[in-house]
Amino acid sequence: MVDNVIRIESGAPSPLDQLTALTAGNMARVNEEITGRMHSPVGLIPQLAGHLISAGGKRLRPMLTLATAELCGYHGDRHIPLAACIEFLHTATLLHDDVVDESALRRGNQTANILWGNKASVLVGDFLFSRAFQIMTADGALDVMRILSDTSAVLAEGEVLQLTTSNDVSTSEDAYLQVVSAKTAALFAAACQLGAIVADRPSADEEALGSFGRNLGIGFQLADDALDYSAKQATLGKAIGDDFREGKITLPVILAYRRSSPEERSFWRRTLETAKSDEADLERAIGLMTKYDALPDTIARAHHYGAMAKDALRLFPPSELREVLTGIVDFSIDRAY
Amino acid sequence: MVDNVIRIESGAPSPLDQLTALTAGNMARVNEEITGRMHSPVGLIPQLAGHLISAGGKRLRPMLTLATAELCGYHGDRHIPLAACIEFLHTATLLHDDVVDESALRRGNQTANILWGNKASVLVGDFLFSRAFQIMTADGALDVMRILSDTSAVLAEGEVLQLTTSNDVSTSEDAYLQVVSAKTAALFAAACQLGAIVADRPSADEEALGSFGRNLGIGFQLADDALDYSAKQATLGKAIGDDFREGKITLPVILAYRRSSPEERSFWRRTLETAKSDEADLERAIGLMTKYDALPDTIARAHHYGAMAKDALRLFPPSELREVLTGIVDFSIDRAY
Repeated sequence: MVDNVIRIESGAPSPLDQLTALTAGNMARVNEEITGRMHSPVGLIPQLAGHLISAGGKRLRPMLTLATAELCGYHGDRHIPLAACIEFLHTATLLHDDVVDESALRRGNQTANILWGNKASVLVGDFLFSRAFQIMTADGALDVMRILSDTSAVLAEGEVLQLTTSNDVSTSEDAYLQVVSAKTAALFAAACQLGAIVADRPSADEEALGSFGRNLGIGFQLADDALDYSAKQATLGKAIGDDFREGKITLPVILAYRRSSPEERSFWRRTLETAKSDEADLERAIGLMTKYDALPDTIARAHHYGAMAKDALRLFPPSELREVLTGIVDFSIDRAY
Repeated sequence: MVDNVIRIESGAPSPLDQLTALTAGNMARVNEEITGRMHSPVGLIPQLAGHLISAGGKRLRPMLTLATAELCGYHGDRHIPLAACIEFLHTATLLHDDVVDESALRRGNQTANILWGNKASVLVGDFLFSRAFQIMTADGALDVMRILSDTSAVLAEGEVLQLTTSNDVSTSEDAYLQVVSAKTAALFAAACQLGAIVADRPSADEEALGSFGRNLGIGFQLADDALDYSAKQATLGKAIGDDFREGKITLPVILAYRRSSPEERSFWRRTLETAKSDEADLERAIGLMTKYDALPDTIARAHHYGAMAKDALRLFPPSELREVLTGIVDFSIDRAY
C-alpha cells in the first residue's frame, strides 16, 4: 500500500495507467466498435447512449477482456467486439440503475434520466441490451453466448435482489455479498472468462480467470462502498454520502450497524430506512463508522477477495501483463481508504 | 365480415378459438416452460412476472410459432421453448411499456408498476429479456439467435422512436407505420419465421411466414388503435379512451387530425400534446373521428395489410390449419369495429 502511494506520488504510472497503456491499441478498436454499434436511425439512441459512454469511466471491464485474451496468447480479433459487448451490458445496467436509484449524477455529469427522462433511459437501456446480444450472436460461439446470457440473467436477478433488500439495515453480510456477486462480480468474471474462451484455452484457465474477475469485482465493489464515505474521496473533490442519502445498504453500513448500540441502531434505521437524512446525519454516520472501524474493516474484507483474485492469476506464467493485472487488484481496493 | 359476426353469434368457434384448440396440447407444454423459466430464488421475480403472465391474454404470439411450425410439417420439440422465448420478449416489453406509459391497468388488472413500483418492473423486465436470451442460446441455432436478437433490437428501437414521436399530432402516417412495424409487427414476424426455421424449410417459406406475421401484426395493431375509440369495445364493458388520455398518437388520430379544420386541429393539439383531457374531450374526439370516418378508414388500412398477410400464406398447400390462420387475420381486425 505504502509502495503504491509512493509510486503514485513519484509520478510513476499506476497499475491502471499501465493496463491502459498495454491495451491502448486494441481499446481504440473497441471504442470504434462501441461508437459504430451505438448507431441507429433513431437519433435519440446514439445521443443518449453516447452521453453516458463518452463520459468515459475507466472502461475497466472491456480492458479486462483484452488483457485476459492477451494473457492467454490470443492473436485473433474476436475479443474486440466481445469487449464492446461487455461495455454495452454494463452501460445498459447503469442506465436502468440510475432510473431505479433516481440518481441525478454519475461520474460528475448529470445522468441520462435527468437529461432525457426515465422513459428514454429505460428504452435506450433495452436497446443496448439487445445490441449486446446481437454482438454475441455475431460471434457465434455457443460458449460465449451461454456465458453472456447467463451473466445477464444473474445480473438482473442481482438487481432485483438488491431492490428487495434495499433500505433494510438488518441485511446480513452474506445476503449483501450475494447481491454484490450477482450485480457486480458476475460481469467482471464474464469479462475475464471471455479471454480464455476466445483463445480456446482449457477449462482450468477459464475458471482461473473467472475466479480472478469475480474476486476482483467483489473487492472493487466493496472499495466503492467504502469510497462513498471516505475522506480520500472527499480530498479528490468528489461528493461523498450519495449511498447514505439514498438509503443504500452497503458493507460499511452493515458492519457499523451490527456493532452499534441500540440507540445508535435507531439512528441507522431512521436515516436509512426512510432515506431521509441531512448533512448532520451524514457526519454522524461517518463518526460511527470511524468509531467502529467500519471503513478499514470493509477494506480488509475487500483485500480478502483481492488475495483470492491474485492467487487465481498464479496459474499463468509470470509476465509483465500478469504483474499489471495483479497490481490492478490492490490498486482497485486501496483507492478507497 | 358479416359471415364472421354470424358465426360468432351462432356460437360457432371463432378462428381464435379454433387456433387455440388446434395448439392446445403444445401450448400446455409452452405454459409449463414459461412457468419453469420464470422461476428464480429471488421471489419477487416469479411473483411479479407471474402476475402479468398468468393474467393471460390470448398468447397469440407463441401460438403462431406453434402453428407455423406445424404448417411446415415440424415434428420436433424446439418450437416449445422458442414459443416461450417469444412470450418472454413480449412480456418484458409490456413491463417496460407500462412503466414508460405510466399505465395503471392492463387487461383489466392493475399493472405491475402500480402494484410493485416502477423499479421492480424495470428490473424484472430485464430479467425476462435475459431469460429469453438464455432460451435462444439453449436452442443453439445461429439463425434462431440472429432473428431473435435482431428482432429485440428493432423492438427497442421502435419503442424509442415512438417516444420521440409521442404527443406530436403532426406525426405522418408513414412515420407511425415505422413505429408499428418495429414495435409490434417485428415480433409477430419473428414468431412466425421460427416455425419455418425449426422445420428447416427453404428461405422462401421463411419469408412467406415472416410476411404473414409482419402484416398480421400491423393489422392487429391498427385494429387495437381503433378499438380504443370504438363502440364495440365499449359494448364489451371495457374502458375506452386510454390512448387518448395518454396523448398517444395512433392511426385514428392521425387520420382525423389530417382531415380536421384549423379549429378542430387546435382541439387535437390541446388535448393530445399536453395529454390533459376530460370526458367531454373524449366525446368530442370520438365525434370528430365519426365525422371524418377515422375508425372505418383505420380498419380499411388494417385490411390492406391483412390481405397481404393472407396472400403470403397461399404459398402453403390448403389445409385446415392454413384456413384457421387465414381466418385469424380478419378476426383480429374485425374485432375492433
